Amino acid sequence: MPRLDPDRLFPLEARARDLARALYGAVADLPIVSPHGHCDPAWFAGNDRFPDPARLFVTPDHYVFRMLFSQGVPFDALGVPRADGGAVETDGRAIWRVFAANYHLLRATPPAMWIDHALEHVFGWTPPLVAATADACYDHLSDCLAQDGFRPRALFDRFGVETLATTDSALDPLEAHAAIRASDWGGHVIPTYRPDAVVDPDHEGFARNVDALGAMTGEDVSSWRSYLAAHRARRAEFVAMGARASDHGHPTARTEDLPEAEAAALYDRVRAGQASAKEAETFRGQMLTEMARMSLEDGLVMQIHAGAARNHSAAMLASHGRDMGFDIPTRTDYVTALRPLLSAHGTDPRLRVIVFTLDETAYSRELAPLAGVYPALLLGPAWWFFDSPEGMRRYREAVTETAGFYNTAGFNDDTRAFCSIPARHDVARRVDCAYLATLVATGRLAEADAHEVAQDLAYNLAKRAYRLDRA
Amino acid sequence: MPRLDPDRLFPLEARARDLARALYGAVADLPIVSPHGHCDPAWFAGNDRFPDPARLFVTPDHYVFRMLFSQGVPFDALGVPRADGGAVETDGRAIWRVFAANYHLLRATPPAMWIDHALEHVFGWTPPLVAATADACYDHLSDCLAQDGFRPRALFDRFGVETLATTDSALDPLEAHAAIRASDWGGHVIPTYRPDAVVDPDHEGFARNVDALGAMTGEDVSSWRSYLAAHRARRAEFVAMGARASDHGHPTARTEDLPEAEAAALYDRVRAGQASAKEAETFRGQMLTEMARMSLEDGLVMQIHAGAARNHSAAMLASHGRDMGFDIPTRTDYVTALRPLLSAHGTDPRLRVIVFTLDETAYSRELAPLAGVYPALLLGPAWWFFDSPEGMRRYREAVTETAGFYNTAGFNDDTRAFCSIPARHDVARRVDCAYLATLVATGRLAEADAHEVAQDLAYNLAKRAYRLDRA
Amino acid sequence: MPRLDPDRLFPLEARARDLARALYGAVADLPIVSPHGHCDPAWFAGNDRFPDPARLFVTPDHYVFRMLFSQGVPFDALGVPRADGGAVETDGRAIWRVFAANYHLLRATPPAMWIDHALEHVFGWTPPLVAATADACYDHLSDCLAQDGFRPRALFDRFGVETLATTDSALDPLEAHAAIRASDWGGHVIPTYRPDAVVDPDHEGFARNVDALGAMTGEDVSSWRSYLAAHRARRAEFVAMGARASDHGHPTARTEDLPEAEAAALYDRVRAGQASAKEAETFRGQMLTEMARMSLEDGLVMQIHAGAARNHSAAMLASHGRDMGFDIPTRTDYVTALRPLLSAHGTDPRLRVIVFTLDETAYSRELAPLAGVYPALLLGPAWWFFDSPEGMRRYREAVTETAGFYNTAGFNDDTRAFCSIPARHDVARRVDCAYLATLVATGRLAEADAHEVAQDLAYNLAKRAYRLDRA
Repeated sequence: MPRLDPDRLFPLEARARDLARALYGAVADLPIVSPHGHCDPAWFAGNDRFPDPARLFVTPDHYVFRMLFSQGVPFDALGVPRADGGAVETDGRAIWRVFAANYHLLRATPPAMWIDHALEHVFGWTPPLVAATADACYDHLSDCLAQDGFRPRALFDRFGVETLATTDSALDPLEAHAAIRASDWGGHVIPTYRPDAVVDPDHEGFARNVDALGAMTGEDVSSWRSYLAAHRARRAEFVAMGARASDHGHPTARTEDLPEAEAAALYDRVRAGQASAKEAETFRGQMLTEMARMSLEDGLVMQIHAGAARNHSAAMLASHGRDMGFDIPTRTDYVTALRPLLSAHGTDPRLRVIVFTLDETAYSRELAPLAGVYPALLLGPAWWFFDSPEGMRRYREAVTETAGFYNTAGFNDDTRAFCSIPARHDVARRVDCAYLATLVATGRLAEADAHEVAQDLAYNLAKRAYRLDRA
Repeated sequence: MPRLDPDRLFPLEARARDLARALYGAVADLPIVSPHGHCDPAWFAGNDRFPDPARLFVTPDHYVFRMLFSQGVPFDALGVPRADGGAVETDGRAIWRVFAANYHLLRATPPAMWIDHALEHVFGWTPPLVAATADACYDHLSDCLAQDGFRPRALFDRFGVETLATTDSALDPLEAHAAIRASDWGGHVIPTYRPDAVVDPDHEGFARNVDALGAMTGEDVSSWRSYLAAHRARRAEFVAMGARASDHGHPTARTEDLPEAEAAALYDRVRAGQASAKEAETFRGQMLTEMARMSLEDGLVMQIHAGAARNHSAAMLASHGRDMGFDIPTRTDYVTALRPLLSAHGTDPRLRVIVFTLDETAYSRELAPLAGVYPALLLGPAWWFFDSPEGMRRYREAVTETAGFYNTAGFNDDTRAFCSIPARHDVARRVDCAYLATLVATGRLAEADAHEVAQDLAYNLAKRAYRLDRA
Repeated sequence: MPRLDPDRLFPLEARARDLARALYGAVADLPIVSPHGHCDPAWFAGNDRFPDPARLFVTPDHYVFRMLFSQGVPFDALGVPRADGGAVETDGRAIWRVFAANYHLLRATPPAMWIDHALEHVFGWTPPLVAATADACYDHLSDCLAQDGFRPRALFDRFGVETLATTDSALDPLEAHAAIRASDWGGHVIPTYRPDAVVDPDHEGFARNVDALGAMTGEDVSSWRSYLAAHRARRAEFVAMGARASDHGHPTARTEDLPEAEAAALYDRVRAGQASAKEAETFRGQMLTEMARMSLEDGLVMQIHAGAARNHSAAMLASHGRDMGFDIPTRTDYVTALRPLLSAHGTDPRLRVIVFTLDETAYSRELAPLAGVYPALLLGPAWWFFDSPEGMRRYREAVTETAGFYNTAGFNDDTRAFCSIPARHDVARRVDCAYLATLVATGRLAEADAHEVAQDLAYNLAKRAYRLDRA
């Protein structure tokens, strides 16, 4: 017996619910376009079996382990690796038992919705997940994972993924991507150029990374010009491997547009490790504008993911390292921050910049007004903590009246949890159809138009935004 | 066949919808009080026919042309004039075809709702506006505009406008207003004192403008005192022409209350063009408090419209000038900013200051708490990008619990799109009735009280706020 | 005939309303746990009759008198005491008449809902409160107050209060609390350690207060160590009197974690009255971290109520003093501010810090992400201006998806209006059940889980958060 409500996330009132059902019915099975995410291309290159259920659902998922940690479950018990070399639980079943016993902590959260969906639709498991069912569930999932139908490529095909973009360091040799392309498998997996490690002077190992960039490209990188040339060369390699986008994860959205001599001098200081915190921020900002200029040349779509205060707990950074759930959103000012880049290139329709925010107040105040006028600017979907039913609803309600639908970029699942991909797209499609149904029921949108927009939000806009509709 | 849903914007649940219908039914046809807007008084002085449909609906409407521009439609194709003298499309029909072919970009936005309403209710056009109907629609509208019943005064009367306030530079000779008053037409059109050009040291031509103010008033304006006296004299002329309010469009809501000698010295620096950016901001702030003091003398209601970053794109400012849709909201702090003015005069019930915001986060955090205690302070309605169904709903939900209904100022259409005035008031009345119906249906407001409040929000509060209920 | 709608605040759609009714039915009569508020313990120590209705409902209630003041009703007419010795109305009936004649100003606000509830459920008065019924209502309430069943202890018992925490200055001798404990009455009334007067260098009389703290504890307080020891000693006395928590009302949430020598030197400057505004802020921040460390020793739960700009009107502060409704919320940054405290102790599950905000934008951006990972951190309920149906709804919608239910701390009534306590808990229970019902109806939460969560939100979480479930 299925546990998921077939009408979940739809409006409650009967007519609006019927409208939502009809809209959703027409988009539910459209192919999945995933133009931004963090799956490992090696999964599809090697097509090895996924390890045990705990390592699929718990240990790598910061949404899950941070919530359990917040209620006193130690990371060690969840098998979360330590940076300080300390021992952690390695028995998948033991981890799974802890997870199941604490699964109620995730009630009414997106990860619970994704996991419930994956358990039921991907693995065919429908009982509730509680302490009493932990072992049975673990056994069931383990049995599935042993089957060829649950290998990465089979799941990719079963999920109906049309395109999956990974996120790859500018220093990545792209071997996994090359292997996929060389294989007889037809899945469309493409890389994304993520240059933070060679663009952010505060990144650990920055100077060493820039040297590596030089070595990979045969550029000298001792000068601003050759450093930019190295970026161009690597971007070209990404493009050759199918990339459609670059991605930039900066603490703020600040951009700069310095005169070349000034930028060159700044590069020298940065490269020598002499830059102040303020200069490092200026350099990051300058590099966003440089990347925009390269986009005008090579056509890569530029994504800006700004506004996280990384590694909030010094103690946890020391014991467990980065990406342990301690990245916290902060206020971000987009109006001032994006002005240099947008003043320089924002009205050029050949440029495409997709901006994401962790500060929801910027939707209606800053981002929708900016995207509603600059041809180069699109708004990325609700991101990270806001990739949720309420977050998506607030996004549409805050953005649409000023930016419309066509200045938004469709959905990103943005995940490294491969089995959650169908669930995430399903939530987005349901929430968007619920929103459209409400617009129709309140006389704000014609029903025929709503059907067209539903297709756009579920499929067309993502392809168009990331230029996947081009040869 | 009408295309507009007669129940648009009402709650979906049957009982709440019935309540909303009943509330709306009693206010739908109340006269329109428009105490703040940007219509051109010359329309009513000359009563000339409006030009072609494109110049009525497209070319002057920044809501419309910014959205089309954001999706790659060049301003030139829409006939938007250039500041750099370049040629633009002048054929109304050609502009209208571009507009119609791209009208889907405005789906679910307020301008689409206003235009649909105007087409149907003002012009009797009900088919959808798409590329295929562009010419027929253009012809239909052109035929209407050729008729006397579509001249400005006839429409004003047909719309049921009781009072229409325009916004006029402090340097405006008010000739159009004088002509209206001298005519045999009884429409109540009044000016509003907008002194930005002679108050803001960053305004281009500030010194020249202040000289002109002196010349108009016979004041010397070489001293702080005579400068203030010139303001007083011009305000008196506005009052004589029926004005009930002044309006102040500052980058922030900052106010100051300097000792007179300090203010006088600042004026000298400002007038000499020697003021720093910081001093310019201080001067603007000081002038808000001076205007409040003048309001205590002459009774003009003071409006503060704060928080827009003007002319975001330097390139567009150069090519097209101001007011091209590149004004973007920014964060505004009202608590600190208004403190000097409110500490000095905020508890004087004779003063009335109406504050508007482009930062919705200020509603519940700052503005409702301030308006809920200071007798002088009222909250203006949801403004600009937020003059929309969702914007109005968020406004009521954020404001009412702390400021109640009676610290709000009724509705402003704030428009230069004359034909949208009935539509805008209709949206506001519907959204407010929907909100009141929901309060009744959830046991938060008695039904009889809701009927009284509906009248207040649709009509009485605007008259009271702008002192239009006084002789 | 009752005036209150038995289904108030529930969802409108039939199935969700039925679910909400069922959830609410099971929690409506649970005991009231009130772990944070401002009732006067002397009421329960002396058990004297409450004075007249005006002094119960109007004169002490800043929610009420600020709204009437904002619409031109002078404080004097409401009997609000002056700091400058001026005369105010003292006749309860006269005050009540002004209140009744202006009660419509509170339409659709929380205080109207609380007062309506108290009039009907506590006093059995159901007609509308308007000018025409003012005297009859006043007489009815006066008759009630003359009865023993309306004395404080009787009402406490009738309300079903299981625990009531008061808020007490660190300098309070706790005599009223001692008297309650020594009495034959079994009501559980406990103090809360509120040290602002001896922690905030900007508090008037700070140096004198610190001396008094020294005198009360026998500590010398001339050194940082002995000052901290004095706090420890007083906290121990509070603990002995049943206290479970401390409470800290700072302008910002800033915390510090200075080396001891630096903190000691800062204390010397602060104590000598030589600290700058910046140093005062640093000292307050340091004291929050010190209090966290003391919490680790004595188990008191730490509450941080940050973000009010106190005494906004200088004129009103001069004429009427503090707490006159002129405290206005401001933006607060929790991410940077809490970092020193959380980096030092935030992952220690023995620590419990409950954070409150007056800046709703922090819920989803900062507080839910922080509480969703730090074991020491819980989110307090929607506070002050946001202790309202819309405020509570926004809180749940913004917080739950990231922090879940179990990182929230249940409900606080936070009131000095004793008769409003049942109304406030009733509103919270209804809003939470409405939210849960909506989650169930939209397939986001299992119905059985919703019943469990409803009990938690109404009762269990407050007990657990404040350690009232421990012996």
